Amino acid sequence: MVKISLSCYVHYDIVLVMEARIEFIASGGVTSAQGFNAGATAAGIKKKDALDLGLLFSEAPCAAAALFTTNRIKAAPVVLSQQRLKSGRAVAVVVNSGCANACTGEQGLRDAAEMAELAAEGVGVSPEEVLVVSTGVIGLPLPMELIRAGIGQVILSGDGGHELARAIMTTDTLPKETAVAVSVDGSEFIIGGVAKGSGMIHPNLATLLCLLTTDATVDIGFLHLALRKAVDVSFNMVSIDGDTSPNDMVLIMANGLAGNEPILQGSNQAGAFQQALDQVCIYLAKRIAGDGEGASKLIEVTVSGAPSIAEARLAARTVVSSPLVKAAIHGGDPNWGRIMAAVGRSGVEVVESKIDLYLGNICVVREGRPVSFSKRELLGVLSDSEVPIGLQLNLGTATATAWGCDLSEEYVTINSQYMT
Amino acid sequence: MVKISLSCYVHYDIVLVMEARIEFIASGGVTSAQGFNAGATAAGIKKKDALDLGLLFSEAPCAAAALFTTNRIKAAPVVLSQQRLKSGRAVAVVVNSGCANACTGEQGLRDAAEMAELAAEGVGVSPEEVLVVSTGVIGLPLPMELIRAGIGQVILSGDGGHELARAIMTTDTLPKETAVAVSVDGSEFIIGGVAKGSGMIHPNLATLLCLLTTDATVDIGFLHLALRKAVDVSFNMVSIDGDTSPNDMVLIMANGLAGNEPILQGSNQAGAFQQALDQVCIYLAKRIAGDGEGASKLIEVTVSGAPSIAEARLAARTVVSSPLVKAAIHGGDPNWGRIMAAVGRSGVEVVESKIDLYLGNICVVREGRPVSFSKRELLGVLSDSEVPIGLQLNLGTATATAWGCDLSEEYVTINSQYMT
Repeated sequence: MVKISLSCYVHYDIVLVMEARIEFIASGGVTSAQGFNAGATAAGIKKKDALDLGLLFSEAPCAAAALFTTNRIKAAPVVLSQQRLKSGRAVAVVVNSGCANACTGEQGLRDAAEMAELAAEGVGVSPEEVLVVSTGVIGLPLPMELIRAGIGQVILSGDGGHELARAIMTTDTLPKETAVAVSVDGSEFIIGGVAKGSGMIHPNLATLLCLLTTDATVDIGFLHLALRKAVDVSFNMVSIDGDTSPNDMVLIMANGLAGNEPILQGSNQAGAFQQALDQVCIYLAKRIAGDGEGASKLIEVTVSGAPSIAEARLAARTVVSSPLVKAAIHGGDPNWGRIMAAVGRSGVEVVESKIDLYLGNICVVREGRPVSFSKRELLGVLSDSEVPIGLQLNLGTATATAWGCDLSEEYVTINSQYMT
Repeated sequence: MVKISLSCYVHYDIVLVMEARIEFIASGGVTSAQGFNAGATAAGIKKKDALDLGLLFSEAPCAAAALFTTNRIKAAPVVLSQQRLKSGRAVAVVVNSGCANACTGEQGLRDAAEMAELAAEGVGVSPEEVLVVSTGVIGLPLPMELIRAGIGQVILSGDGGHELARAIMTTDTLPKETAVAVSVDGSEFIIGGVAKGSGMIHPNLATLLCLLTTDATVDIGFLHLALRKAVDVSFNMVSIDGDTSPNDMVLIMANGLAGNEPILQGSNQAGAFQQALDQVCIYLAKRIAGDGEGASKLIEVTVSGAPSIAEARLAARTVVSSPLVKAAIHGGDPNWGRIMAAVGRSGVEVVESKIDLYLGNICVVREGRPVSFSKRELLGVLSDSEVPIGLQLNLGTATATAWGCDLSEEYVTINSQYMT
């Protein structure tokens, strides 16, 4: 678990974009936007008495877009939600943790459909408008009797986002939620979200669940585009362990209750919406990285001077994913050679003699050669709860940032005893 | 450290290929072939009083071929050896552990060249015929005063391969060496080798050093080809941690002292040579996998029924590299869903409903669905020191095997304190 002091986010507190104002909302979450309600219950799916079944519901029908796992083994709730979202509409999401409902065949699909039906009945909508999200152990059937009994216990409220945030946690040690208020050209709207990590996390959507909500009225074409862009700079730049799961899903629902004119691509409002959505997703992505399984440190790798954005992204992701880099940072070991080795194997064209490497503000390599530095100061950087790594390739102008966490003995302990 | 019982290799003890006979030599190594001598000394490069500087020398000039790291950051000894091997000839290799001489700029190149000169002087050959191999920490200069003082202490002998095997170890807990005797069409020759792991190991030559020797006379064109093929089924199918180093090198030297007619591609002798070389490399690769940093188990993943060899290889390598699979096997946790998730994200086209999954001889998934099995028997398989995983994709006829090890708390401990 990483404590992230508020001061690191001070520069996000107020961001001015054109005529827009974007402010983080204190204790914001997935129900901060108007008309969204949520709730959760401890249905008994997880072993301990913890929230594990939840519901998100919008008082008005939503335009909805999502990105799904790239894993070719797709969990039943992913198959079902993917199919239902072809309509571009949804009104509710039923969520469980403790069981992924993956590798469960036809029975799994029937169970996911029944979960949606139960939820639809509870809130009085058509099952076709309900999406399903599951996370947990792969290969076990959903305990439907617990879900049937539990779903009626869920009480929805405008403050229920916090419960939902806890209900989707698996090995997460902290809930991940936030919201921003946006004011642009006389319109005001809110974007909020909730996410979970914290293992099987790797680029290509990371492995995670994320539900985003907004009361803005958003054109569905732009909504898709904005989600893809936001995910590219946030969840797709997070790596915990190189594994990706069959259950990944990032969903956004826009219910239009803010009453603004529909936001269309290319407009001033679209720019503000994109920036706000990026901030929400980056905030959640960093929380996921910092709360990776067994993590004690957040690692932030920024590659600059790359010939292209694609190469900057690849290099940053490779370094932040390297088990050897992660283990060294865990131990506060100033083994910067591993960072050089990782960028060298990333597949990005690098020129060794042009590379500058920084740990925090301390330059340890200039033009590919070690430079002398204060070891005491470097150990200070490495012992911090956030370790920034800066790689200047000096080949171009593109920059990208990726986030991850250190690799600890505890990661192994958690993952060698997940089922037993 | 993994103890590999001899019985697992019984099926390799005698292999009949066409008219050929291939036998593993007891206590064989890199100096088993005629005319190869080696030796090592404790020069003080490693912290403890351990062998860390060695020399391999052939009494007759050799045809030589090598494969080098694909990392774009290349260590000085790699740059030097790669350039010298353009001639296709070599007679000696000087080796050190404890310092990789990587990221050391012009000084590193000068140091590598001096190391070759010192060795050449000692054995009375031209420096151009001497290759250099280094392994250890990246970014530190070679302690040349120790190397200058140590090189004269190395005493070559026909039994010195065992010393050399220990001199190239870093975090390896066991030396890795073997040799086979080949008899084909009236000719007899030996192929031997020595290798080291055991971190920064991943396909694309793994991260390793391997020196192979043979007294066969081999056409240089075929030697290149045979090495590439052998590496493809051995070192390129080993993964410890997904990292690759700037120092990887697999070298083969053929001195012709067996007096056979030159082995040319397509001949009966070439078939026997290839099979023998494959066996030597697979043996060494498995030793590297089983002795991965912190490893307590060797994992062998065989993917069959793939549409192509490339896809079989990719799927096997992805599963054996998955941190979550590795951690589960470390803990003896029967979390087979992670194997399904790993093959699903491998990029190989799989059809979930066709996959059969075996742990040892126990089928846990048939046609994509969990099947009931004896948990007691499965825990028995998982508690063994070798854990075989079999994935039948049922899409084609191609098969490939990859090797790796479990992920333990000790791996993290080793790698979080490598320099400190």
